[in-house]
Amino acid sequence: MTTTTTKTGQPLDRTILDSLLRRRLFFTPAFEIYGGVAGLYDYGPPGCALQANIIDTWRKHFVLEEDMLEVDCTMLTPSVVLETSGHVDKFADWMCKDPKTGEIFRADHLVEEVLESRLKGDKEARGQKVEVDEEKEAKKKRKTKDTKAVKLPDDVVKEYEEILAQIDNYNGEELGMLITKYEIKNPTTGGNVEPPVAFNLMFQTAIGPSSNLAGYLRPETAQGQFLTFQKLLEFNQQSMPFASACIGKSFRNEISPRAGLLRVREFLMAEIEHFVDPEGGKKHPRFHEAKDVKIGLLDRKVQLSGRTEITHMTIGEAVATKTVDSETLGYFIVRIYLFLVRVGADPKKIRFRQHMANEMAHYAADCWDAELLTSYGWIECVGCADRSAYDLTVHSKKTGAPLCVRETRSEPLHIEEWQVDLDKKKFGPKFKKDGKAVEAAVQALSQDLREKLAIDLEKTAKIEVDVPEVGNGKVEIDKTLINIEKRTRVEHTREYTPNVIEPAFGIGRILYSVMEHVYWSREGSEERGVLSFPPPIAPTKVLLVPLSGHQDFKPLVQRMSLKLRQLGISNRVDDSSASIGKRYSRNDELGTPLGITVDFQSVKDNTYTLRDRDSTKQVRSDEDTICAAIKSLVEGQKTWADVQKELPEFTQQEAD
Amino acid sequence: MTTTTTKTGQPLDRTILDSLLRRRLFFTPAFEIYGGVAGLYDYGPPGCALQANIIDTWRKHFVLEEDMLEVDCTMLTPSVVLETSGHVDKFADWMCKDPKTGEIFRADHLVEEVLESRLKGDKEARGQKVEVDEEKEAKKKRKTKDTKAVKLPDDVVKEYEEILAQIDNYNGEELGMLITKYEIKNPTTGGNVEPPVAFNLMFQTAIGPSSNLAGYLRPETAQGQFLTFQKLLEFNQQSMPFASACIGKSFRNEISPRAGLLRVREFLMAEIEHFVDPEGGKKHPRFHEAKDVKIGLLDRKVQLSGRTEITHMTIGEAVATKTVDSETLGYFIVRIYLFLVRVGADPKKIRFRQHMANEMAHYAADCWDAELLTSYGWIECVGCADRSAYDLTVHSKKTGAPLCVRETRSEPLHIEEWQVDLDKKKFGPKFKKDGKAVEAAVQALSQDLREKLAIDLEKTAKIEVDVPEVGNGKVEIDKTLINIEKRTRVEHTREYTPNVIEPAFGIGRILYSVMEHVYWSREGSEERGVLSFPPPIAPTKVLLVPLSGHQDFKPLVQRMSLKLRQLGISNRVDDSSASIGKRYSRNDELGTPLGITVDFQSVKDNTYTLRDRDSTKQVRSDEDTICAAIKSLVEGQKTWADVQKELPEFTQQEAD
Repeated sequence: MTTTTTKTGQPLDRTILDSLLRRRLFFTPAFEIYGGVAGLYDYGPPGCALQANIIDTWRKHFVLEEDMLEVDCTMLTPSVVLETSGHVDKFADWMCKDPKTGEIFRADHLVEEVLESRLKGDKEARGQKVEVDEEKEAKKKRKTKDTKAVKLPDDVVKEYEEILAQIDNYNGEELGMLITKYEIKNPTTGGNVEPPVAFNLMFQTAIGPSSNLAGYLRPETAQGQFLTFQKLLEFNQQSMPFASACIGKSFRNEISPRAGLLRVREFLMAEIEHFVDPEGGKKHPRFHEAKDVKIGLLDRKVQLSGRTEITHMTIGEAVATKTVDSETLGYFIVRIYLFLVRVGADPKKIRFRQHMANEMAHYAADCWDAELLTSYGWIECVGCADRSAYDLTVHSKKTGAPLCVRETRSEPLHIEEWQVDLDKKKFGPKFKKDGKAVEAAVQALSQDLREKLAIDLEKTAKIEVDVPEVGNGKVEIDKTLINIEKRTRVEHTREYTPNVIEPAFGIGRILYSVMEHVYWSREGSEERGVLSFPPPIAPTKVLLVPLSGHQDFKPLVQRMSLKLRQLGISNRVDDSSASIGKRYSRNDELGTPLGITVDFQSVKDNTYTLRDRDSTKQVRSDEDTICAAIKSLVEGQKTWADVQKELPEFTQQEAD
Repeated sequence: MTTTTTKTGQPLDRTILDSLLRRRLFFTPAFEIYGGVAGLYDYGPPGCALQANIIDTWRKHFVLEEDMLEVDCTMLTPSVVLETSGHVDKFADWMCKDPKTGEIFRADHLVEEVLESRLKGDKEARGQKVEVDEEKEAKKKRKTKDTKAVKLPDDVVKEYEEILAQIDNYNGEELGMLITKYEIKNPTTGGNVEPPVAFNLMFQTAIGPSSNLAGYLRPETAQGQFLTFQKLLEFNQQSMPFASACIGKSFRNEISPRAGLLRVREFLMAEIEHFVDPEGGKKHPRFHEAKDVKIGLLDRKVQLSGRTEITHMTIGEAVATKTVDSETLGYFIVRIYLFLVRVGADPKKIRFRQHMANEMAHYAADCWDAELLTSYGWIECVGCADRSAYDLTVHSKKTGAPLCVRETRSEPLHIEEWQVDLDKKKFGPKFKKDGKAVEAAVQALSQDLREKLAIDLEKTAKIEVDVPEVGNGKVEIDKTLINIEKRTRVEHTREYTPNVIEPAFGIGRILYSVMEHVYWSREGSEERGVLSFPPPIAPTKVLLVPLSGHQDFKPLVQRMSLKLRQLGISNRVDDSSASIGKRYSRNDELGTPLGITVDFQSVKDNTYTLRDRDSTKQVRSDEDTICAAIKSLVEGQKTWADVQKELPEFTQQEAD
């Protein structure tokens, strides 16, 4: 069961927050006047500004700070690329159809829902308290028929619990067996469902007029970056390691999307592909800057033992103890953590959870998810995977294009090896049309075999080599045609396929989780909701409020608004007839961190009060000083505490 | 024929510019290692940064400056929405197939290509000079078979020329007739092509697992904004006029995309929907700020007379003379113009062309395109259309949802009208099951008919009304059942559907055209290309160059780089062993406006030289002064001329 609290420690009521977010148009179901489409949402002005500010912060925090090479790759992707990457075969969920009603269920969700409902009925029958799991409840659209107070045998309860604990681990066949064994039916009608079939989660389309070029909407931004690797390496003047980055929409055709903004069919991602030499332990040159940051970790071992407690340790410790595999992975875990805090996530509600071996994507060698605690439970918001050399290797193999690094060795490498020399002049006439096959077979001989043959050659006049394509598969080569000798080869360059560390951010999930983290209500009153976004992230920075509709205020408001705009600071004027208190309340809900009141004193001496959203404290000063204070607050250089120290407090009460 | 020149007046060689842009990874064909897909391009780091800076400027110039409500709507769109908007029926091009080769041609392009080729052959045969139209040439992928020096009869030449002049005006049937009449064949093989068929330009897909919800990728961002209109109006506290804005990708499945970045299948758009009251001449409250700006216009009348000369006039004049239809349209033409100049378009290469009546989209009432002159000719980069009330009306009609403004009239409206009263008690028993139909027919009577019937009622005992659903279609109503009287009705509120002025920006087209406008080469040497982006738009702002690999320079370079990053200024270090001149040349090609050289003097006294990309002039000062100068240049507050006046010049020659 998940009980989350607001920023100020009150229990979080999601219905109230949700209604606030929709009322203030942070988001809204897409195509609502047409009845809507599950899993598609639009962002209204505050949501859109919030998203733009998160992206802007992301660019500064990662691309600018780490000199990453940002690219913009297309969403339309020809099928062959995603066949190679494995997505056409493997990027699927299991679904079951009720042949009577045509309803479609995600198989694992169906099993989960029905067994949980039976366990609930069992508890009721036993007279035990039924805990409500809000996360699960929210996922249910239907009233389930099964919720009857029926007592189950003790061993069945245990079986159900064991199945639910590992529900993510079953494949389609196994889910089908569970459905048969436990007689799982359509919860609404009680009708039978068909066995699970794989449903690929990619949206398919056809590119070009002849419809013969099958394509998909990308399910991640990564592939475009991999395909451009060689050009990026060149752009980076062949220098390693380096990272590329891409911000853009990706698409997943979820079987039955639920949970609002957390599981949608079209979503904004920001992905980094950090290319690193697999040799030398994947060190990171800036690891020393990160190593002392403490992170809450939930590693694989703890999870295997059935526990979920978070261990707090510095990332230096985590890497030293091999809890986290490499410096580079550790470095990015810290950078991700700092980013999440910077955009407003509550540090107490952030954990990094390591993937179980069987839970990882088909390409991953290791993976840690940054999870944020919300009313839906711990939600994966950033994946940080070591994709090894998987992608570059498969694409290179498929296309023949080199996707690798060639570098001059600082010390040439000396390799002792058995080399084969053939007497080409005699070789051709001897083997005629088989010449090439025999030569290839000889050149393909392993070092061990070469050594053995070299010894043979000292003793005998001819040696025997396997050439499957020729005659009976064995060919004799005369001593005069071949020589095998141990020599030293010097390698001056090294060629390798880089490994990829991939931090992949689901921006919509971060955005939603942050909204939960910064939400609270004043004096516990539901009607006085506040969204305490950090000023650099807040959708609108300043609310301008004239004390009344008096004509003298207008030019001051306009001048201030223009001045702030010229400083690049978004602001809104509210000159409605509502009381100042009401106008501020409205903007507390929008998360506007600062307010300027224009009053009669302003007309006289060009001074203004500046109000802080969170404390509702006010300071007063002249136009330029107020603007400078706002700029430093909005750019994150100062906090309200700093400003309060510098400027005289204004204590007149807000007219409510 | 189009001959364009570079920024400095040299003839522009597109092949050289193109090679520079690809070499420096401004853009690259997507999926190139898989052979590429026509019409899909990726942006590399400089192209991506350029795009981000153009978008950032767009947001400041429009959204922030004009308080627009930015939204982020989904690209996936259910079919019904685009059926209502007319796109499923009408958003198509005509294509012809060669049944032998399977090749597909855009019908109008095919006719154009073949006729032009014949005219060229005719000129050759007549010994006339053949002008090469680069735009047309670039569009051709194939070698055409037709280019033979064959003289045509004079009247045929005239016919061809007339057809080509209006090639955009033919529908599919007409194009088919041209193909038959002029025996137009596949230019490569000479084979017959099939009659033109409509090809819808939208990418289709299926949403959800049951595949029964047909969807498309949006062809424009506009529809999402229209559907959200009512919520946005409420967000704007019912205040009109207001504008929404949306930045995002749109998709068009072009039949045969050519011309590089100018005609692609996936492209970034930025669209504004300005909602305005259709009454009162579509005035704009800030028109006075725009009215004195002079704009180059090519109106419909001039085009109809077969001419293309541009008239320069103030937008105030243009609106006063009704050349431009309304203040609001005129205001946005000016704002678009200022934006284009701000991002680096050459004012001499900007014109606004009015659409011909038959050229406009199915929804438009008037339309002006901002066109930029490039080596491909005048290219439509921004459309500024008056979509009237078309979209809001059709969506409202289809869904029943109100998409309109209700406002209290400042003066109540008094309407004199003929009103009908029915005696309901008698009416029911008399007409029984036909009662409703008769009542509806009576209520639907026009004012004129009501007046006539009122006069009849004074004379006769019964009147006759048309009721098609009942009996013989005529129904008699007794005088005792009905009364018709002239009365005054008072309306306190007014309800209207706003009109929409839509400036729609093709960001990729602007980006490409600007690259052509800012390109030149030093001393006319092709190898010394420069891209003179305005500093706020340039992909990277500062190049940091240590004089040599000397150890003492490293900490200074790092400190400067960090300091600039903290100011939010993107910078790159080039500490390669190339000469300073070479390193600067490389970055001239990337359009980096500023360079800092770290030399031995810097180590001694912490002073640095700052170099201007365009003039290659340098100034020298201490760290803080240099950083402050950079910040004001990059934010567009100062020009290099300003900085040169303030700081001492540094005259030592660049080591080349």
